Amino acid sequence: MPRFFMAGTNILGGTAIMTGRDAQHVQVLRMRPGEDMIICDGQGTDYKCRLIRSDKEEAEAEVIEVVKCPAEPTVKVTVMCGLPKGDKTDYIIQKCVEAGAQEIVFFDSDRCVAKTKKDKEDKKLERWNRISEEAAKQSGRGIIPQVSWAEDLGEVFNIALHRDLALFMYETGEREGMDAVLSANKDIKTAAIITGPEGGFAEFEAELARKLKFHVCSMGERILRCETAPVVALTAVMYATGNLG
Amino acid sequence: MPRFFMAGTNILGGTAIMTGRDAQHVQVLRMRPGEDMIICDGQGTDYKCRLIRSDKEEAEAEVIEVVKCPAEPTVKVTVMCGLPKGDKTDYIIQKCVEAGAQEIVFFDSDRCVAKTKKDKEDKKLERWNRISEEAAKQSGRGIIPQVSWAEDLGEVFNIALHRDLALFMYETGEREGMDAVLSANKDIKTAAIITGPEGGFAEFEAELARKLKFHVCSMGERILRCETAPVVALTAVMYATGNLG
Repeated sequence: MPRFFMAGTNILGGTAIMTGRDAQHVQVLRMRPGEDMIICDGQGTDYKCRLIRSDKEEAEAEVIEVVKCPAEPTVKVTVMCGLPKGDKTDYIIQKCVEAGAQEIVFFDSDRCVAKTKKDKEDKKLERWNRISEEAAKQSGRGIIPQVSWAEDLGEVFNIALHRDLALFMYETGEREGMDAVLSANKDIKTAAIITGPEGGFAEFEAELARKLKFHVCSMGERILRCETAPVVALTAVMYATGNLG
Repeated sequence: MPRFFMAGTNILGGTAIMTGRDAQHVQVLRMRPGEDMIICDGQGTDYKCRLIRSDKEEAEAEVIEVVKCPAEPTVKVTVMCGLPKGDKTDYIIQKCVEAGAQEIVFFDSDRCVAKTKKDKEDKKLERWNRISEEAAKQSGRGIIPQVSWAEDLGEVFNIALHRDLALFMYETGEREGMDAVLSANKDIKTAAIITGPEGGFAEFEAELARKLKFHVCSMGERILRCETAPVVALTAVMYATGNLG
């Protein structure tokens, strides 16, 4: 069934009014009066609606049923990744939204090769958030996970400090196993996953994470690419907290 | 450290002789005598070697240490996917090799849109296996997971029947949760994961899987793309069997 995201303020008195891109999309899908769709308010509530009328500018739909979106996990995971090169960002966003991330943050760290240019940041963020919206529609999410940019690891660590559990993925040295950490933390409501760019994290960055009492974690002996690690770590968190079936 | 795969027969009497593409690769990497590399026999054994000499045709290295490759998981998972469109195959191969798959099989099922042409099958298989080798090198695997082609779901089901646990991923109807199935099967040595193409499986295909006593499984309420599902399912199996850190 087609899925749309719309501010709840446009759903009033049992009727939803769609405009702009959404109204156009209804036309592109060649939906006819009487056909059903889901309009999600982006806050976890799904409105099952039936199309009444539509033209290029506006579509009107009748609300049939209101339910809590079943796709939202019980744990809100903030996935934070050292900015990778090229279109790996797009891949990370798409897959992490499907896998259930609450929000995605990219940041600059010591070994980041990719750099964002100040003047292009806004355009990038706009594109990233559009990818998130598409993935959220496709996978049936009840929210559009926000994609944002953190200036440095300090800002990232500050966000992580406000989560029930903070996992810092690191490839060498003394680390805890993901399974040991997660099986001791099954009841968390929020979590942060921090992964590095192509070259991984510098030792001083891991040291800092240790000082903040984050869990410096290993995902086994296989070396995961920087765009694979966030998805694998997120999946482990979803599995361990009972959010994977 | 650079990593190569080579038949164990080329490692004799404490010396490894590299030829062809591997010898060229040593040159491309500008390795000098005295530098170290790992030569893996593709059977799970790593030979730590020191380069003695190299030219375009041949390189010779001295074996310093022989160890079991630490990256191989304790469970051998066969990942079998309905053939997707475009380059999603490449993505599935790369990510599943990183995540620890033993082998990857593509097959034709009722709702497959993509079709392989008979005369192009060999070339495709060659390319797929090259992607697997690259990913195996990159992630430090002890084997090169084989990528192969199964004619139909019958052949796929026959392979799955020979595994300790067979998981059939399905999006609707009566299904078991992954976590319930996996936590009751932590000691498996082999497993099969079966996922569908873009359009998922037809009901009669799921019915057949049920009759064969496979576990028809859900991965929660989020709809995963056909190229995401194998990686997420494989990660869950790795996590549940203690192979993720």
